[in-house]
Amino acid sequence: MKRLHLGAFEINGVNLTSQGLWAHPDNQTIRYNDLDYWIEIARILEGAGFDFLFFADSYGYPSIGGETPAVAFEQAAEIPKNDPMLLIPALAAATSTLSFAVTTSTTFEAPYANARRFATLDHLTRGRIAWNVVTTTSTVVSDLFGHDRFIPHDERYAIAEEYLQLSYQLFEGSWEDDAVVADKSARVYAHPQKVHRVSHDGAYFSSAGYFNSTPSPQRTPVIFQAGASKAGLAFAARNAEVVFLQGADSGKLRAQVDQLRALAADEGRDPRSITAIAGLSTVVGDSVENAEQKLADYLSYVDADAMRVYFAQMTGVDLTALHPETELSTLTTEQSRTQLTAHRGRTAAEAFADYVGRGGMRDLVLMGTGADIAESMLQLAEETDLDGFNITPYVSPSSYLEFAEHVSPHLRAAGAIEEAPAPATLRSRLSGSDRVPSVHPAARYRSVEVAR
Amino acid sequence: MKRLHLGAFEINGVNLTSQGLWAHPDNQTIRYNDLDYWIEIARILEGAGFDFLFFADSYGYPSIGGETPAVAFEQAAEIPKNDPMLLIPALAAATSTLSFAVTTSTTFEAPYANARRFATLDHLTRGRIAWNVVTTTSTVVSDLFGHDRFIPHDERYAIAEEYLQLSYQLFEGSWEDDAVVADKSARVYAHPQKVHRVSHDGAYFSSAGYFNSTPSPQRTPVIFQAGASKAGLAFAARNAEVVFLQGADSGKLRAQVDQLRALAADEGRDPRSITAIAGLSTVVGDSVENAEQKLADYLSYVDADAMRVYFAQMTGVDLTALHPETELSTLTTEQSRTQLTAHRGRTAAEAFADYVGRGGMRDLVLMGTGADIAESMLQLAEETDLDGFNITPYVSPSSYLEFAEHVSPHLRAAGAIEEAPAPATLRSRLSGSDRVPSVHPAARYRSVEVAR
Repeated sequence: MKRLHLGAFEINGVNLTSQGLWAHPDNQTIRYNDLDYWIEIARILEGAGFDFLFFADSYGYPSIGGETPAVAFEQAAEIPKNDPMLLIPALAAATSTLSFAVTTSTTFEAPYANARRFATLDHLTRGRIAWNVVTTTSTVVSDLFGHDRFIPHDERYAIAEEYLQLSYQLFEGSWEDDAVVADKSARVYAHPQKVHRVSHDGAYFSSAGYFNSTPSPQRTPVIFQAGASKAGLAFAARNAEVVFLQGADSGKLRAQVDQLRALAADEGRDPRSITAIAGLSTVVGDSVENAEQKLADYLSYVDADAMRVYFAQMTGVDLTALHPETELSTLTTEQSRTQLTAHRGRTAAEAFADYVGRGGMRDLVLMGTGADIAESMLQLAEETDLDGFNITPYVSPSSYLEFAEHVSPHLRAAGAIEEAPAPATLRSRLSGSDRVPSVHPAARYRSVEVAR
Repeated sequence: MKRLHLGAFEINGVNLTSQGLWAHPDNQTIRYNDLDYWIEIARILEGAGFDFLFFADSYGYPSIGGETPAVAFEQAAEIPKNDPMLLIPALAAATSTLSFAVTTSTTFEAPYANARRFATLDHLTRGRIAWNVVTTTSTVVSDLFGHDRFIPHDERYAIAEEYLQLSYQLFEGSWEDDAVVADKSARVYAHPQKVHRVSHDGAYFSSAGYFNSTPSPQRTPVIFQAGASKAGLAFAARNAEVVFLQGADSGKLRAQVDQLRALAADEGRDPRSITAIAGLSTVVGDSVENAEQKLADYLSYVDADAMRVYFAQMTGVDLTALHPETELSTLTTEQSRTQLTAHRGRTAAEAFADYVGRGGMRDLVLMGTGADIAESMLQLAEETDLDGFNITPYVSPSSYLEFAEHVSPHLRAAGAIEEAPAPATLRSRLSGSDRVPSVHPAARYRSVEVAR
């Protein structure tokens, strides 16, 4: 039986993809400022056999024509939103096998500071950390950070590629594995000849000196990436260890997975060393009909106007400002293209109706009894060659609780998720090894001998 | 009886001020990568009636003439050192009354990102967070971050002042106190007319847009500052709520406290609204003689060469490279001047011998039984007008454990620390109010009406 990897898709804010759903009586997301809320979720996920809790993030919020529509505040559409990285240490202390993926942007964080944060987290979580690498194109965030220059889409990936090379050098190249001895009787903490200066002088970044953090369990955090553009796929094929795909059609998902593995092979990587996951939402009921009623109730809370401004934030496109017959495939945008790509061949009016009707990017939705859902997940994984799913809840923590109670037992019985996983690093759980494989670009910085 | 405020001085690394002391058998600082170590310490401090756990930090490490001496790695002198901010969420979850102060630099963190991190922490800790504001002059850190420009000492404070003004505006000015209603039945999360754009266009920073975080318990974190230069004192008198002073002579400490309160009064602030604390180390024994023996044992682990490179990192001055008869007061430096100021009137040779002999900046050291130490602390507080002490341990957690067992009971009996404090924000614990007083510069950004 194929082993499935399960993640939970979260944001440190009030709505996920379905703007307005915060107001559902079963939804407790307005507790997002409360550590106890997150600890409760992390423990449910660990009990349900999840591999990781994934946090999306950005500093941005909706803005259309330079204005933030009132509905964004009324429905908490991407504003407010707190820093998710700061949840992780508390959740790590409350769990032992659950891992954590967190998003930071190569456009707005200083590489040295970002690498030190991830190395610190890799130590504190004992290797249960992943970095979801994103590039940012947002005039909102540029304005918040006082940056003058708007960076075009493809150049962002060139910046990200250089950012990763510098980060890899910090993670892998400064301290040799056996540099730290912490030998009290010899009074030697580390061997100086095994600690090396990093030196990077590139087109976008420069850095010279020693890394602050000693070798952590995984060294380089597990690299996550999402992004369906050509530049995004090429970046993922070179660097990503977990790729988050989107789509509702199993044939198209299969094509994406195949393409990604082929591109990875072209880069000299084992195509199976990439863990391909897709977004999935589940609704458990006594029957399919009962689950459909639950879903209809959830979606009745979705606010169409809030969905409009949220879509505009994600894509740069205000669907209701277009002529309804505009074909979306005729549009180009500098922002995230994934959600536009998903609407290829649709008119603006069709896309908006569909988007609101599904409560945002809910690519795969499974409804029924726990047994139905587990069976469908296994079948989907077979058809698509996906390695797992990132579960996006409708209501939290209820959606997780019902998954834990009704779906996980069937996945366990089928041998698709482990009965009681032992504490391990995330990379080991995904691929059997704590460290990046020798063909990964991070590995080339190991044991670099640079004069001190 | 005067109420004393107690802090613990820490670093997320292997040595505090006494380089080499990591190797003492009772010292467990090499466990710094382990969350359990820090949770243990936080619980000891909370039990001992401490107000806060303070984390010093910098991205820097020793460098003399562009080279990092081997002894820095051998004795872990300021390298390695992990990000301390990422400890706090886990420690907040493990405690209920202990607060946390953490250092970030106005030279190297983006103001918007830094403010969002502190607002997130203020939410997650329920108002138990303080920001120790530092400016950085370090070619080591400039090189790590790829910054071209070396910023002179006094200009750093001009940058810091502007940085704080922008931060205050984000903390206090974007969301009105009652902007968030989270009313599910009305389906209104926040009132748009009560959320305001921040707009700052200054000499060093610009930022325009909304803050991501809703009003947190304290809004502006409690502002800590240390720094004995003229520019540093002026900055503290305007902005600081807790000032960390250094010195071993109670008369000189009294003069510093008086000067600081007078400067604060000149700024229109209540001179007693500044909590003045000084560094203090304690060694508990059955008798003074027994405690002195313990201290001699600790100091026997201090490595003189590591102390030399550590002093050079802090001050920019390599004491052993100077002619031994050089008077330190003849030197000027762009780096932290506090430690040089402490050696005024001494030759380089005298200063170095004294510095190594005390294991670094150990300004006030009290030895004896718990009752002796408690009595001396109360007497010092009377003589100096200090409001409390930042306890720097020799060995961890032993120094904290002996303080909790032998000193705290006497302070409690004397009414100097609370028997069982109720959960409260740090600011409330220090000054009786959750929010900055109306005369604090942060308060001027409250209810700023800027067109949305």
